[in-house]
Amino acid sequence: MPFRHLSQIQELHQLFLDKLADSIWSSEPRGLYEPIEYILSIGGKRVRPLLALMAARMFGDAEDCRAGLPVALAVEVFHNFTLLHDDVMDESPLRRGQPTVHEKWDVNTAILSGDLMLIKAYDLLSRLPDRSRLPELLDTFNRVATGVCEGQQYDVDFERRSDVTIEEYLKMIELKTAVLLGGALEMGALAAGASRADADHLYAFGRLTGLAFQVHDDLLDTFGDGAQTGKLTGNDIIRNKKTFLYIKAVEDLEAGEREELIHWFSHSPKDPAPKVARVTELMRLRRIPELVGEMRDTFQSEAYAHLDAVSGDPAWKAVLREVADSLLRRES
Amino acid sequence: MPFRHLSQIQELHQLFLDKLADSIWSSEPRGLYEPIEYILSIGGKRVRPLLALMAARMFGDAEDCRAGLPVALAVEVFHNFTLLHDDVMDESPLRRGQPTVHEKWDVNTAILSGDLMLIKAYDLLSRLPDRSRLPELLDTFNRVATGVCEGQQYDVDFERRSDVTIEEYLKMIELKTAVLLGGALEMGALAAGASRADADHLYAFGRLTGLAFQVHDDLLDTFGDGAQTGKLTGNDIIRNKKTFLYIKAVEDLEAGEREELIHWFSHSPKDPAPKVARVTELMRLRRIPELVGEMRDTFQSEAYAHLDAVSGDPAWKAVLREVADSLLRRES
Repeated sequence: MPFRHLSQIQELHQLFLDKLADSIWSSEPRGLYEPIEYILSIGGKRVRPLLALMAARMFGDAEDCRAGLPVALAVEVFHNFTLLHDDVMDESPLRRGQPTVHEKWDVNTAILSGDLMLIKAYDLLSRLPDRSRLPELLDTFNRVATGVCEGQQYDVDFERRSDVTIEEYLKMIELKTAVLLGGALEMGALAAGASRADADHLYAFGRLTGLAFQVHDDLLDTFGDGAQTGKLTGNDIIRNKKTFLYIKAVEDLEAGEREELIHWFSHSPKDPAPKVARVTELMRLRRIPELVGEMRDTFQSEAYAHLDAVSGDPAWKAVLREVADSLLRRES
Repeated sequence: MPFRHLSQIQELHQLFLDKLADSIWSSEPRGLYEPIEYILSIGGKRVRPLLALMAARMFGDAEDCRAGLPVALAVEVFHNFTLLHDDVMDESPLRRGQPTVHEKWDVNTAILSGDLMLIKAYDLLSRLPDRSRLPELLDTFNRVATGVCEGQQYDVDFERRSDVTIEEYLKMIELKTAVLLGGALEMGALAAGASRADADHLYAFGRLTGLAFQVHDDLLDTFGDGAQTGKLTGNDIIRNKKTFLYIKAVEDLEAGEREELIHWFSHSPKDPAPKVARVTELMRLRRIPELVGEMRDTFQSEAYAHLDAVSGDPAWKAVLREVADSLLRRES
């Protein structure tokens, strides 16, 4: 299904890409800047900078919207910094189908280039046209960046624990993913002169959309149509990944079923088909997909209530809503 | 030799330590914050935060000086972040006589905790009492932090090259060490309300003192009295480390001597004594220690000229001068 607001989205996308190209990555020493240029050039959907620019556009014309560019660049560079260091920590060989930086160069290069990207994210943010708002934006950026690191650590901790609660899991995905989406919107709006109240609503909209997206993603992996998602259905179950579905099931299943589920998640049989079949059967038995789907829908409708409360340009609110819809549009 | 201004230095040192203890490191998740608490607690001379506080004290009374605390904390946390990641990259087992973070925990913990320290450095800096100066301080911090990463990369690059010039080497040690000393002074002064001109003089003083210190350190390693420095004399030669002395010697020696020097630096004989003896003989023959000593003295006197030009409290300028003296006091 094509975007109804495709031209508006493309306009901001192009504005961002032009600014990203017209940048600082050709500096010396090349051994430090080349990996940064590489990771920033191999693409990605640019969701976070687009959110920042849409939030800015909502409070001004095309020219005012440029005030959001420092935020757009900062959040994209920050996001790519986290990918670079996460790939080192996970020993991932590929990112977006291309060799990761520690594979193409080495681990030390990936660490140091990542460090510089984090510094450059702050540097880019500080190039706001109206610097009187910089302290306020810096507070948001620090809060968000701290949250992302904490979320990453919780994720690592939770892999080693068997008693993670739904609240803890939601907190983890909120920190790891959702706060940066919210932060991009909040900072984009502030950069363009929005009120604190509007910026807060946009943050809440982004945070809740992020939660809905993550929960939806877990649901798709296990109960989605593999042909449509492009992923192997049941992959999370095969890898014993403790997703939202799994944690909800551990909470809701009866004692015997719970033990069986935990047992399935404690080993990796050669033929995974019977495991996937039985685990999904156990989950369906206790209506886990429906319950998790309802939670996703609650996040989503709460998100839209916050978007409705924003006093920005209704035309651009509609664009933003369509982008959020598209994240959750894939068939479950 | 005891400090003449010991009580003033101790006063600021204690102010810093109290603030460092009264801090954020007890947060959750512990797996992320514990390593930060650890690296910050195992000591160090706290030179950078002391410089920041002295610069602030120069432009106000004991109460005004507290305006420099956010800078003092930010530069110390930043410096320890660089140590944490450098230790991973160098695979160093010990730091200040204690196990490094990647040894005590693991490499992934050291990467992620280091990342959070960099974010916290910005977070601490942003807690200035007078936030109208934050954009200006942030510019300095970004410039300094970028320089430190670039210096680290040049250091790595230079180890693989045999044609490094004196200018390149000085640029590397300037970025890797000296700019942070200058930055601590510049930002401490700005936080306490100093003029741009005074802040610039203090930056230049710190930068040149840093250069003098690094050159002095190289000189000590090879021509110092091991009993006084507590180091093995000639250690840099044994490890084939391309120091300022080595690069100056490669530039100044005659062709045959140069080839001999390069040959000595291309291998590690079992008994290093003849190597150390011959290399120091070659250097002495062309008066390298004297020439390098003169360069150090030039940096030092240029540094003091900048300090003299600062319009701050003369009593505190004297304290700062004594601290700088102490860095270069060890017998060469």
